[in-house]
Amino acid sequence: MTAPPPSVREQIARIPFSQIREVARVGMTMPDILPLWFGEPDRPTPTFIREAAKIALDQGDTFYQPNAGIPELRETLRDYQNRLYGSRYGTEHITITGSGMNAVMVAAQAIVSPGDAVVTTTPSWPNLPAVQEVLSAQVRSVPLELKSGRWRLDLDRLFSACQGARALLLNSPNNPTGWTMPAEQQREILEFARSQGLWLVADEVYARIVYDRPAAPSFCEQATPEDRLIVVNSFSKSWAMTGWRLGWLTAPVELGETFEKLLEFNIAGPPGFIQRAGVAAVEQGEPFIAESVARYGASRDRLIGHLQHWPEVSCHAPEAAFYAFLQVGGLQDGIAFTKELLHRAGVGLAPGEAFGKEGKGFVRACFAVDPERMDEALRRLDKAFRK
Amino acid sequence: MTAPPPSVREQIARIPFSQIREVARVGMTMPDILPLWFGEPDRPTPTFIREAAKIALDQGDTFYQPNAGIPELRETLRDYQNRLYGSRYGTEHITITGSGMNAVMVAAQAIVSPGDAVVTTTPSWPNLPAVQEVLSAQVRSVPLELKSGRWRLDLDRLFSACQGARALLLNSPNNPTGWTMPAEQQREILEFARSQGLWLVADEVYARIVYDRPAAPSFCEQATPEDRLIVVNSFSKSWAMTGWRLGWLTAPVELGETFEKLLEFNIAGPPGFIQRAGVAAVEQGEPFIAESVARYGASRDRLIGHLQHWPEVSCHAPEAAFYAFLQVGGLQDGIAFTKELLHRAGVGLAPGEAFGKEGKGFVRACFAVDPERMDEALRRLDKAFRK
Repeated sequence: MTAPPPSVREQIARIPFSQIREVARVGMTMPDILPLWFGEPDRPTPTFIREAAKIALDQGDTFYQPNAGIPELRETLRDYQNRLYGSRYGTEHITITGSGMNAVMVAAQAIVSPGDAVVTTTPSWPNLPAVQEVLSAQVRSVPLELKSGRWRLDLDRLFSACQGARALLLNSPNNPTGWTMPAEQQREILEFARSQGLWLVADEVYARIVYDRPAAPSFCEQATPEDRLIVVNSFSKSWAMTGWRLGWLTAPVELGETFEKLLEFNIAGPPGFIQRAGVAAVEQGEPFIAESVARYGASRDRLIGHLQHWPEVSCHAPEAAFYAFLQVGGLQDGIAFTKELLHRAGVGLAPGEAFGKEGKGFVRACFAVDPERMDEALRRLDKAFRK
Repeated sequence: MTAPPPSVREQIARIPFSQIREVARVGMTMPDILPLWFGEPDRPTPTFIREAAKIALDQGDTFYQPNAGIPELRETLRDYQNRLYGSRYGTEHITITGSGMNAVMVAAQAIVSPGDAVVTTTPSWPNLPAVQEVLSAQVRSVPLELKSGRWRLDLDRLFSACQGARALLLNSPNNPTGWTMPAEQQREILEFARSQGLWLVADEVYARIVYDRPAAPSFCEQATPEDRLIVVNSFSKSWAMTGWRLGWLTAPVELGETFEKLLEFNIAGPPGFIQRAGVAAVEQGEPFIAESVARYGASRDRLIGHLQHWPEVSCHAPEAAFYAFLQVGGLQDGIAFTKELLHRAGVGLAPGEAFGKEGKGFVRACFAVDPERMDEALRRLDKAFRK
């Protein structure tokens, strides 16, 4: 009798568990930890968004929805993006998803076959490469480079990694580094992708968390609606809706029809009452975004300003997203170190290794918190870092 | 210069669009259509469930949740299933998903590699085989057989199709036929799967929509918690929560850990306020289930009783689920016929071909409606069927 095949696919067994959650699981059992580990605003979703969901629930909006999303939300997002980016997308280019994560998965299901190569940058939010591995694709990572404290992407290196690849997956503004791709690089990449028949997947979920202008540079500003470009977006960061699992895809019409089909086999459309809340968020949420970005920016400035007291820690002020990816001199084991920080300082950070081996020597702090809370975190971390 | 590769994966392009939606799209533009096409109860979710979600929203339950679901819901479902089935599952065997559909996808991602063979029965809800195709697996279909008006599964035929297969995917109570696998067959299948190291995936979302006992026979009654069995379930049918996208998986511990990892890359856990509503549904929902099943059963009886007036239409009373899979004498093209019925009778049915080629000659009617509404549908359909 032969041994039975392994119970779990080897491809899946190889994907590591989240190392952020490994640290958080320890910290969550401890009293009085100040958590900066997850990428999540510290306040609940604004009341006007929650009320919109409650009204829809009262109205009995509890039935199946169209796979591609309710027309009202697709139209609202179309207008929002065209206003923000001066683009000319139609409703047919917009597909609603059950989170930005779900959008990344469905995008990959549409274009990535087993064995295909997908190029991405690192350090990276680990879920982006993991999705490709779930679908039995090959991931090629191109490291961002830290030069004079600033993250940079070398396009020659990127393009050479793209030879024979099916897709290029970029996350800007970037988690965990805050790196934000300049519009000029986006133009060059788009030209390159066109010349190669390469698919571009742009994860732009931090597009509105930016400290020196209304929105980060977007591929939507450079591309035509029928370019081989899929833009992933989410309600989580801009409107403090992490728990709602609502996102959207912007893509050519052929892909839109494919997403509609694929969503049926994944989640079959987010709840109608959540989509109604999404309409309220986009239509009435600009003051909330402005206020949040000002608040996160103030916390960012206190954190970066405080680094003068920590000689072994360095980080330039990120221009976007809400993470400081702190380089810690001499740091060897980020997981052990962030677990130790729970005990020594009572602050929860994410180990840099969670974002790939290029993250070794770093820890990530989310600064989407009140400035007063950041001050408290800095006071606590002084115990570990102040010299 | 070579032509660029196709934009959408060929594997995905080949999967047909839903033929139910093809008919529904026509009908939705017409006035006064009585829709029996989708598998959805006709009433909104009960108020006590909606109120539980609203309370959680008021409490600010809008943050990220654990990938495997909130402990309270996992524990509630553990107790519910153990009570219903006399089983001994622990919390660690229960994983919360964003719908039964999402559960099927995540189950397949965990165990099915590209090229693996997955066996299922037909006629079938088309999404079950489609998920396997999205993951580049091979689907082998074993037809249910209609004998003296009753659907039957020939186990010899099933087992012979399972040679070399990775998984066996069964949906009982069955959509669209109402076929319900007897406990004795479940025992035999489980023994066979054990002997082969074969994975069993049991879609039991209609477990509580059954007309002669509290619940349909479940693999949970036959298996031990560490058998190679994954049971898919959903809140959609039992508690009229189709639009909420909430489901769960019951599986061995090793798989539970894998699901936790995979959910992170799919939807990262349903919203907390939806999971709170799920707790209310399970804890307080038994009277609602009893009342709903009585109502659907009355509609089923009126429909089946009425068939005596329609000489070319035949169907035995299904013992479970809420579909009548009506065999129509001489029917060649179910899609054209159901579109024609929209105009002739003003009733929306689903074409049998939507459930595979073995569905040719059938139409599906969902009877999860008030008996008075079923009477109206039958009066309308008399125009097409009464002789």
